[in-house]
Amino acid sequence: MANSRSGDSVIDRIVRVLATFDAEHTEQTPTDISRRAGLPASTGHRLVGDLVRSGVLERDEEGRARVGMRLWELATRGSMALGLRQAALPAMGRVQAAVRQHTQLGVLDGDQVLFLERLSHPDAGANITRIAGRLPLHASSSGLVLLAAAPAAVVERVLAAPLERLAAETIDDPGALRRKLAEVRRLGYAVAPGSIEAVSTGVAVPIRDRGSVVAALGVVLPRGEENDRVVAALRDAAAEIELSLARSSTILATFES
Amino acid sequence: MANSRSGDSVIDRIVRVLATFDAEHTEQTPTDISRRAGLPASTGHRLVGDLVRSGVLERDEEGRARVGMRLWELATRGSMALGLRQAALPAMGRVQAAVRQHTQLGVLDGDQVLFLERLSHPDAGANITRIAGRLPLHASSSGLVLLAAAPAAVVERVLAAPLERLAAETIDDPGALRRKLAEVRRLGYAVAPGSIEAVSTGVAVPIRDRGSVVAALGVVLPRGEENDRVVAALRDAAAEIELSLARSSTILATFES
Repeated sequence: MANSRSGDSVIDRIVRVLATFDAEHTEQTPTDISRRAGLPASTGHRLVGDLVRSGVLERDEEGRARVGMRLWELATRGSMALGLRQAALPAMGRVQAAVRQHTQLGVLDGDQVLFLERLSHPDAGANITRIAGRLPLHASSSGLVLLAAAPAAVVERVLAAPLERLAAETIDDPGALRRKLAEVRRLGYAVAPGSIEAVSTGVAVPIRDRGSVVAALGVVLPRGEENDRVVAALRDAAAEIELSLARSSTILATFES
Repeated sequence: MANSRSGDSVIDRIVRVLATFDAEHTEQTPTDISRRAGLPASTGHRLVGDLVRSGVLERDEEGRARVGMRLWELATRGSMALGLRQAALPAMGRVQAAVRQHTQLGVLDGDQVLFLERLSHPDAGANITRIAGRLPLHASSSGLVLLAAAPAAVVERVLAAPLERLAAETIDDPGALRRKLAEVRRLGYAVAPGSIEAVSTGVAVPIRDRGSVVAALGVVLPRGEENDRVVAALRDAAAEIELSLARSSTILATFES
């Protein structure tokens, strides 16, 4: 792999260019992309041109670039994310219909929760921007569920790092986080009141595939509305998703083969 | 961009590697990837290693590579596909509940329909493999809707190319296709009986954003079940999605800014 003088590879530079795109930056000029990717303008312009020619980026009428449908297709078609979200979507729909609050599916990725899917309450469209978004493990109910089931090395690494305080009630003390993880393991679900916003509480349960926790299913409730019915709805949905995952490996192996 | 002796760029080789992954090939050895990408083994192994180091691919315990969650995140976060499917998902759910058949959302991409979303009937899990899948424009109801609204240059290009016959009833004659497109424009929806499988019929309607057709919403019905109720359900859903798209540009622009 050809490296630039600064030592980063072409792949690293491509990743840096792609990382400049998000829900608030879906279309950008090559100049903005270069600046946000920390690349010299000439390098950035040339790379954007090459990415457009390969269909990884697309150019609109005004010369701004956006993430290409081709890249979405390549990244989605063979992704584990697709199988998981497809297995989860019907049950997530039923949770959302029953609980009538934001319902989300997250996985552990690089010491963070990465959200694969989020169904928003009809009146709360703004949350569409959070799919493919991330949250720290210690600060969300989904993250606590994933961390409670993570290998000891991951737990110790998270406990040793600074625990960012997103809100007044975020757990930012390693001892308190260790006790919270023990509680999550004992209860089989996580409740995180006010850890992101004072007005809301996250509740999440684990989803297992062949014995291992592979995802967390959670809802975001108005503060004070945590109750057994919500936990029961999440657990029923998790059981349904686990059944679907167990079946889907067979289906995937037999379909179109 | 550094080119190999055969003249293809690093980006082209990365795209070829990523294109070897699909629902039937989610985890592959570097040797299989090299073979399916048409790359010399040494080039393929080195490229897979570089892609794993950047998080674009991930390696499992047995040394096989899979598409990384990081690539899915990069490709999804800033993608137009995400906004469109989020705007469409609630209405698609209602179509599926009412019609009780496969419901899908497709866009025009490179003279084909690329499917962004597909909700399967609960008893038909196998169809999960078709998200991020493609179909020829002339052979599917979604494709006919998109082609009927496409620029004349696209229509002429498709009419001039061989029209692949996927089933006995696929329209494979340019004159017949031209007449079918006129019918789709007149009716405002497309019906494609038996064009992919003799036992099923596709019905699709256009979805517009700021006056232009940006997607097609379709259902796959058992043959003979086409009726006005299905078309009405699709039209209601399309109107709802168009309203959501019109609102979402404002929401996306004001949220988190």
